[in-house]
Amino acid sequence: MSDNPSFVLKGILDVEIQQKPVPEIDPNEVLVEVKKTGICGSDVHFLVHGRIGDFVVEKPMVLGHEAAGVVSKVGSSVTNVKVGDRVAMEPGATCRKCEACKEGRYQLCPDVIFAATPPTDGTLARYYRLPSDLAYPLPQNLSLEDGAMMEPLSVAVHAVSKLGALRSNQSVAVFGCGPVGLLCMAVAKALGASRVIAVDIVPSRLEFAKAYAATDVFLPPPMEKDESRVAFSIRNAQAMKEKLGIADRGPQAIDLVLDASGAEVSIQTGIRIVKSGGTYVQVGMGNPNVNVDMFVVICKELVLKGSFRYGPGDYPLAIALAASGKVDVKPLVSHRFPFTQAREAFETTRSGKSPDGKGVIKAIISGPDVDVNEA
Amino acid sequence: MSDNPSFVLKGILDVEIQQKPVPEIDPNEVLVEVKKTGICGSDVHFLVHGRIGDFVVEKPMVLGHEAAGVVSKVGSSVTNVKVGDRVAMEPGATCRKCEACKEGRYQLCPDVIFAATPPTDGTLARYYRLPSDLAYPLPQNLSLEDGAMMEPLSVAVHAVSKLGALRSNQSVAVFGCGPVGLLCMAVAKALGASRVIAVDIVPSRLEFAKAYAATDVFLPPPMEKDESRVAFSIRNAQAMKEKLGIADRGPQAIDLVLDASGAEVSIQTGIRIVKSGGTYVQVGMGNPNVNVDMFVVICKELVLKGSFRYGPGDYPLAIALAASGKVDVKPLVSHRFPFTQAREAFETTRSGKSPDGKGVIKAIISGPDVDVNEA
Amino acid sequence: MSDNPSFVLKGILDVEIQQKPVPEIDPNEVLVEVKKTGICGSDVHFLVHGRIGDFVVEKPMVLGHEAAGVVSKVGSSVTNVKVGDRVAMEPGATCRKCEACKEGRYQLCPDVIFAATPPTDGTLARYYRLPSDLAYPLPQNLSLEDGAMMEPLSVAVHAVSKLGALRSNQSVAVFGCGPVGLLCMAVAKALGASRVIAVDIVPSRLEFAKAYAATDVFLPPPMEKDESRVAFSIRNAQAMKEKLGIADRGPQAIDLVLDASGAEVSIQTGIRIVKSGGTYVQVGMGNPNVNVDMFVVICKELVLKGSFRYGPGDYPLAIALAASGKVDVKPLVSHRFPFTQAREAFETTRSGKSPDGKGVIKAIISGPDVDVNEA
Amino acid sequence: MSDNPSFVLKGILDVEIQQKPVPEIDPNEVLVEVKKTGICGSDVHFLVHGRIGDFVVEKPMVLGHEAAGVVSKVGSSVTNVKVGDRVAMEPGATCRKCEACKEGRYQLCPDVIFAATPPTDGTLARYYRLPSDLAYPLPQNLSLEDGAMMEPLSVAVHAVSKLGALRSNQSVAVFGCGPVGLLCMAVAKALGASRVIAVDIVPSRLEFAKAYAATDVFLPPPMEKDESRVAFSIRNAQAMKEKLGIADRGPQAIDLVLDASGAEVSIQTGIRIVKSGGTYVQVGMGNPNVNVDMFVVICKELVLKGSFRYGPGDYPLAIALAASGKVDVKPLVSHRFPFTQAREAFETTRSGKSPDGKGVIKAIISGPDVDVNEA
Repeated sequence: MSDNPSFVLKGILDVEIQQKPVPEIDPNEVLVEVKKTGICGSDVHFLVHGRIGDFVVEKPMVLGHEAAGVVSKVGSSVTNVKVGDRVAMEPGATCRKCEACKEGRYQLCPDVIFAATPPTDGTLARYYRLPSDLAYPLPQNLSLEDGAMMEPLSVAVHAVSKLGALRSNQSVAVFGCGPVGLLCMAVAKALGASRVIAVDIVPSRLEFAKAYAATDVFLPPPMEKDESRVAFSIRNAQAMKEKLGIADRGPQAIDLVLDASGAEVSIQTGIRIVKSGGTYVQVGMGNPNVNVDMFVVICKELVLKGSFRYGPGDYPLAIALAASGKVDVKPLVSHRFPFTQAREAFETTRSGKSPDGKGVIKAIISGPDVDVNEA
Repeated sequence: MSDNPSFVLKGILDVEIQQKPVPEIDPNEVLVEVKKTGICGSDVHFLVHGRIGDFVVEKPMVLGHEAAGVVSKVGSSVTNVKVGDRVAMEPGATCRKCEACKEGRYQLCPDVIFAATPPTDGTLARYYRLPSDLAYPLPQNLSLEDGAMMEPLSVAVHAVSKLGALRSNQSVAVFGCGPVGLLCMAVAKALGASRVIAVDIVPSRLEFAKAYAATDVFLPPPMEKDESRVAFSIRNAQAMKEKLGIADRGPQAIDLVLDASGAEVSIQTGIRIVKSGGTYVQVGMGNPNVNVDMFVVICKELVLKGSFRYGPGDYPLAIALAASGKVDVKPLVSHRFPFTQAREAFETTRSGKSPDGKGVIKAIISGPDVDVNEA
Repeated sequence: MSDNPSFVLKGILDVEIQQKPVPEIDPNEVLVEVKKTGICGSDVHFLVHGRIGDFVVEKPMVLGHEAAGVVSKVGSSVTNVKVGDRVAMEPGATCRKCEACKEGRYQLCPDVIFAATPPTDGTLARYYRLPSDLAYPLPQNLSLEDGAMMEPLSVAVHAVSKLGALRSNQSVAVFGCGPVGLLCMAVAKALGASRVIAVDIVPSRLEFAKAYAATDVFLPPPMEKDESRVAFSIRNAQAMKEKLGIADRGPQAIDLVLDASGAEVSIQTGIRIVKSGGTYVQVGMGNPNVNVDMFVVICKELVLKGSFRYGPGDYPLAIALAASGKVDVKPLVSHRFPFTQAREAFETTRSGKSPDGKGVIKAIISGPDVDVNEA
Repeated sequence: MSDNPSFVLKGILDVEIQQKPVPEIDPNEVLVEVKKTGICGSDVHFLVHGRIGDFVVEKPMVLGHEAAGVVSKVGSSVTNVKVGDRVAMEPGATCRKCEACKEGRYQLCPDVIFAATPPTDGTLARYYRLPSDLAYPLPQNLSLEDGAMMEPLSVAVHAVSKLGALRSNQSVAVFGCGPVGLLCMAVAKALGASRVIAVDIVPSRLEFAKAYAATDVFLPPPMEKDESRVAFSIRNAQAMKEKLGIADRGPQAIDLVLDASGAEVSIQTGIRIVKSGGTYVQVGMGNPNVNVDMFVVICKELVLKGSFRYGPGDYPLAIALAASGKVDVKPLVSHRFPFTQAREAFETTRSGKSPDGKGVIKAIISGPDVDVNEA
């Protein structure tokens, strides 16, 4: 087909399906017919606020960046994939010549062209072009929906495996049971964590986490009126230690904490419960200004790391973990929408549940003319 | 001599010289006749507040932990030093069998016995006992005063070399020009940093830093009335970038930031000026609750590390850097007091300058009956 | 009981059971009644040759160092175990104050006192004393035989996890299917290796490896008459690559090679089949003089590491992997002997099989008066 | 000028100057007018043997890869340099999309296009094209000859700083006093090594090393008739330890050994004198089959690394070390030839000295029509 219907963000809360030209490709690129795109919190944030920090939507932009599809055309130099291949699509094309790209941290490339990060169009269209090495062939036992899920799974792989450097038999706590938090738990379990503690303020999300990948769950006590966040985090950490038998060192200690919530109290609590000499990884974005107890950071010699997207080797490891069955992404797909109902998909994700009351974990939008039931 | 006059903290702002028993030593220990002890901010903090965080002075305690002396007696198993040796004294005796000790991070030993950290007596006495491997023979070209300075120099070595992992030709910014900040600069320079930026709010301290080890200095602009610390830190970082030509990446970028001030604005600014993918080390303690911009931490994938005291190899490297002339600690000794004027030494350090108006960097108290002019 | 029957090596091939005094213990030590000791190739080597490299048996020495038992007495300062506790016994007591001990590599302590390494007596006796922190309580689901197996398992943990730094989804090849090689495979599998290739020249050992932990096995072709080892290793590596579909890079590449054979051809082949940029760990000792192709080492930028015993954290991880069921050590115990038949245990291990023709993997000798059938 | 005279290797010992077409450039490339090219041992090896290991010269090839020049033309996308810029030329253009390139080890890219490695033409011509990011502008205080020396200096930076991870105050021994060995010493000194030991069998080369960058030198004793290399290496290591006061651990130990000779005896000796727990880096290529004492490798837990060319950040660090004066490459340029005498330059390098008896360290060939005296 030669048309390219695209789901365009025109302004705050203003979206529509438009025809856009089919992209031309360079010799090293492929054109992918997008079959499935997952909705990410960042997509919704752009829809509602028109910006995320310094990334501001200044002209109409196609949304979507968690995607998989089928190769529709290949450039003249492409050898790793061929027309018809089912591929997961890594959405960030980096410059390959800056210091960050060369030193193996391409996630920090200042000139990255990233799907649905202004001003670059995203994947909610019939066609998307990308460098061929970012199109990863899907093993037979992974569906195209699984392929779209490789994007958030790569975020988790990056945070848990590369930055967290989790090793077998270590203990992990993950704050926040949204898709990224759940996938961090799944990756931790896949890497051999002996204990995976899920923390969230919504009991039903903890239930899901427990059934999915957590070995323990913790529901924080209610915050008291007039209680400061700092005071609450001290109380919360203490309650968590007591309930779950967490120690500051030794086999009962938490080696690695990941925060996938972005909430100040979670961050504060996480820093208090991680072990002396432990590692804390911030993967969720929330309020930028967070009160951190530097006394704790110093006395425990903590290492705090910010985790941004994913880098070399993360997509391949995500695909391998899924293909080997160590991580199962299917249970996270809670809602499916045809392309023509992309707007409803966003509204559902934004509200947190569909009209039937079912909570949203991950909503997937099919490409134009793709059967919504075909995973 | 068989007596052991000791400078005892009895309560808040309540000190006196008392006789204490001469310590008995174990087969692996040595008894050192303390000749020189430097005063640290933490000593003053105990004097004024009776506590530092969870470390609370609950019974009379001898102060002082930056010390050097002469070996006076050796236990039956000691082979590395002999009576009469001049030694720098590492003040923390660790358990050697916990996970932290075994894994090479003894600074995190929960059972450490640390001079002048409650309830352990410190070095401001005639005699101090310590495990023989913590008594480091001083090379001929280092004085006993230099020996006392090995303690803060080890703090700097730990922060800059071990945690900061500074490599030749990298750029460093150090916030705070007190003794530890200055020594961090000196270590950075000794390790081959191409640029060492000193930041402080006191111009005379910047002048000293420039003459001592910094290649560049930065005096923050005044904070405006009603300006939040966050807003000021953004403005401050911008001003610093412009004045000093600092970039986010490349040769003009700051690879490593160390904060030796503990001040919230310094921390906030430091996180903003360190390069994308850079490292930030917190070595100074101040207000524990510090507002950190997690958006910056994530998007730059920063690594933030708390630095606590020093660990294996830090004292030896400190001594080697001083002995080889790569670091000169002598310029930092601004004031000298005999043992009988220990109280005046503390008051002077607390006030920041002596009655003659000379600013205090480091005050050294000689041991009982030791000539104050004999370095 | 107050006697201490001990299995003593008096000279080459000259052993006998003698009474030795019950060891006195220091305040930090425990006395363990040894229940099970496994025989290691090094024990047999001392029996047959009286030396291993620079370690020479110059006076009668009790053999045995892979042991577990029950705490019989505790020193006055001991808190981590109590009389009656079943414990795995780490056989090397290190000095805790040398550079190696402090920096977290106590396996390199020059003053280690190691069971059955001359001149230190080993564990084949009723009683053995050791520092209390080297007595690791066994979880309920691990037997005393399992406890003795923690020693070779720690060797494997050290080689695969600490030095090999194996990560999930990587591929491993292990040369040599003796106990250490098999345990390296088991650890690799436990850590999530996607592929574990066993190499040995004895088909029945490959069968065992396949049933135990390997995903693939390789039997080298016969060496031809007049073929040099170097020439054979080139041919062998090529055959191995073809048979198993091994590539120099990418998902079909071998990330980590461990040699547990010590055989020159294995080492040469291992270096040829490991991937470009890969890691090779030498854990088995054989002929010290091995012909290595430095051209390959350079062009692939290999990292070759020698693995010696085990260090901090290895015993705890070994116990955790066994207790969690990720590694099963039981299948490796092929033969059991009562204390009075220690000599026969050694002869059987030396010959490689028992009179009934059963191949030896690991022979366990029970302590004096311990039921050989009580695991 | 539109012609492109080139120095072509037609067959073994068969070279001539030919006209070749001026290369066309891509948008991301630059055309450099080559001003200075140093001769490397590998160039001579190709001339004499027509191959190095698996790299075989199968058709006429322009020699030379240590080069600097002036930008003559820039592609349409180039922003980092402009026509007229003086640049050091990194000679390996890598694919930027393989695993090695992405993970920060582009020196292992299997698809690298490397100057004067078959079948790629080298820099001994008027013009050479390369990706613009491999053309590094030279600081004002570095000459074009210095620029050509950045290639072997990058080899040394890679071996000493990146792989050797040398830190301040460590001790280093370098075997082989050719250009790469000398530059390894210079880099070690620049990085703060406290001791830099040079080893060579030619006294005059040791004298040069001592005057240039070594703190100590060692001339091995003569090998005895019928003495095996292994036996000699044991005796040699012992002699070296005694003469220089080298210990197995502690401040008198050698932290890092680099072999830039490729000679078997050097490798064997180097492995024996490096400290317990130390690092050995192989940077020189010689006979591929080298007898290594694996018993030593295991018992000292050595890490042996092969060093191949250079990777991300090595050229920039080389330039910074030279520009800051920490490394002075000028003393190494022993001979200079005009382009028309390129053949004589090779003959001189091959013979080791010029007709006047002066030993060759590095010979530089100027580009066509470039004044040989203009550095």
